[in-house]
Amino acid sequence: MTSADVAASTLHPAERDAMARALTLAATDGLVLGSNPRVGCVLLDADGATLAEGFHRGAGTPHAEAVALTNARHAVGPDALRGATAVVTLEPCAHTGRTGPCAHALRDAGVGRVVYAQTDPHRVAAGGAQVLRDAGIDVVDAADLLDDDLASRVRDLNHAWTTAVTLGRPYVTWKVATSLDGRTAAADGTSRWITSAAARRDVHRLRAGVDTVLVGTGTLLADDPALTVRDAVGAQPLRAVMGLRDVPAGARLASPGPDGSRALHLRTRDPRAALAELWDHERRHVLLEGGRTLAAAFWRAGLVDEVVAYVAPVLLGAGPAAVADLGITTITGAARLDVTGVTLVAPDDADAPGDTTVRLALRPRKEQ
Amino acid sequence: MTSADVAASTLHPAERDAMARALTLAATDGLVLGSNPRVGCVLLDADGATLAEGFHRGAGTPHAEAVALTNARHAVGPDALRGATAVVTLEPCAHTGRTGPCAHALRDAGVGRVVYAQTDPHRVAAGGAQVLRDAGIDVVDAADLLDDDLASRVRDLNHAWTTAVTLGRPYVTWKVATSLDGRTAAADGTSRWITSAAARRDVHRLRAGVDTVLVGTGTLLADDPALTVRDAVGAQPLRAVMGLRDVPAGARLASPGPDGSRALHLRTRDPRAALAELWDHERRHVLLEGGRTLAAAFWRAGLVDEVVAYVAPVLLGAGPAAVADLGITTITGAARLDVTGVTLVAPDDADAPGDTTVRLALRPRKEQ
Repeated sequence: MTSADVAASTLHPAERDAMARALTLAATDGLVLGSNPRVGCVLLDADGATLAEGFHRGAGTPHAEAVALTNARHAVGPDALRGATAVVTLEPCAHTGRTGPCAHALRDAGVGRVVYAQTDPHRVAAGGAQVLRDAGIDVVDAADLLDDDLASRVRDLNHAWTTAVTLGRPYVTWKVATSLDGRTAAADGTSRWITSAAARRDVHRLRAGVDTVLVGTGTLLADDPALTVRDAVGAQPLRAVMGLRDVPAGARLASPGPDGSRALHLRTRDPRAALAELWDHERRHVLLEGGRTLAAAFWRAGLVDEVVAYVAPVLLGAGPAAVADLGITTITGAARLDVTGVTLVAPDDADAPGDTTVRLALRPRKEQ
Repeated sequence: MTSADVAASTLHPAERDAMARALTLAATDGLVLGSNPRVGCVLLDADGATLAEGFHRGAGTPHAEAVALTNARHAVGPDALRGATAVVTLEPCAHTGRTGPCAHALRDAGVGRVVYAQTDPHRVAAGGAQVLRDAGIDVVDAADLLDDDLASRVRDLNHAWTTAVTLGRPYVTWKVATSLDGRTAAADGTSRWITSAAARRDVHRLRAGVDTVLVGTGTLLADDPALTVRDAVGAQPLRAVMGLRDVPAGARLASPGPDGSRALHLRTRDPRAALAELWDHERRHVLLEGGRTLAAAFWRAGLVDEVVAYVAPVLLGAGPAAVADLGITTITGAARLDVTGVTLVAPDDADAPGDTTVRLALRPRKEQ
């Protein structure tokens, strides 16, 4: 297979398989991505056989394409890449950041064809496809050529990052844990625990998938949360608190985290200002935890991208509602969401056998 | 296979298979059971081959054993039952009600062995096993001999009926449909609709599985519900309203139902008295619909056996809570429930594509 054998608008079966493999590589667990997306790359020779693979391990480390090129040179030698095809999950960057631009590296290596699954949404880094085309390389934007399975894997791989980069602010996931009747505490304010031990451990996994965990000063003063990730595989997320009140010296958030990091105090009540400051700290995915007033402020500002709700099989009948006033007065104004995932969190040994928690992932519905 | 070949404490494979078949027959859709349980019966000859089958179609019709005996006599002749084995899902009755006792019918037919899966919990009808043993027939209470799959099918088959007969009052299922934040209406009281069209149709299926649908006069006056079953396969459940206030002549519940039946007005505020009156009307399974105050009264009296909760992907932020005060003041007093089933009700054509409703079945946890 040479680049001339395959039209620019079709995908060779070997390239389809390579893309599936590149997606698997990109989705490797336990990466410390920082502000960067997940990317995987597979290099194929002229016969469609795999020359080398690579994936990105996070900000400050080489990009997926660079890793794969290095691996190919080690394995096959410097000339192995003449006429090779690079299959990449994301459009190669044209931007010199902490590493050189991948489009140049692919061009200079003599690659004959580049297939990528997603256009780079980043205004600064984009333009790699044009650089490659200008060098006479076959470039295939495969977004519309993938089957449904691969296309949905591409969408899911960097959903939060893509949204963040497109909007120019961190992606916001609002986590809420409630009783079956929508309460977060009993009448006297006690709330430990409404959800099962298994559900609380699931929250740690949720935290491990974001780069920032945010609470309001109200929650800080009421609950003194630690906001750390138990058994973290990757990095601890940044712990952030938002509001005008001071963080007491004795608060858990005033102490360094398990990795020695300090919490960040955003001295504002404006969700947009808080997100702008987090963006400047290279944050791309914020988890709102606790603070029904804080969450309502984000919601009313249209700054919630996703809701993750843990519904526990518990009735309280009284106590604070999980969700504060959203400004909705009548049923036609109800905030409708689309369910994107439902998981049953089975009880663990510390829980009662029937203590199944339902975990819903939802996205606010566009055009209501 | 004769009765002497099989010890009273073991189950022949043919008997195991016959029990599975009897359970399937008992669970036939669209039956009008009235106050009676579901029962299936399979008659086997001495070689373990099926002679005939039968199942009960509801109060006033022949019992499963009688149906099977009649079918066997028609198919094989009057002497076919000498030495036969009757495999029945429920202990044969010893009680002359609207039909004669099945234990006598089996004895008189010359059956040599009777295998049943559940002891009759009914104080009046029970005793059939003893009648059969006294006649020298091998009797096997197979409750502890069934594999997990069959045992759980036996438990589920008549769960509500068994509980009702054991407690001497109708089984109570409380249906609640809420937004994700536990509200049943918006701030101005409007509530049509919080749940999807698909979820509302599912409620009709839920109603079709009970014999009584109950609301309070408060809900009657506020919502004027019809409480009928759309596209009913079996009978319409009894429509009942509870409370001291009169039913207005113009209310939907004041008109005859689709089958010409009248609604029943229970002039009491006492859940126990209401259930006693329904029991006297031969009601065994009551669905509480609407009326958070009514539901709370049943809950606080310990008279809720099951909760079916429809959680819609909607946020309201304000409006009445789905569940009224249950007398719970602190988290250690929370009402914990065991999840017995989770169903995702997919949206239908009238709904938005992401409008998945989560349907939870739960039972109040014993010993908290």
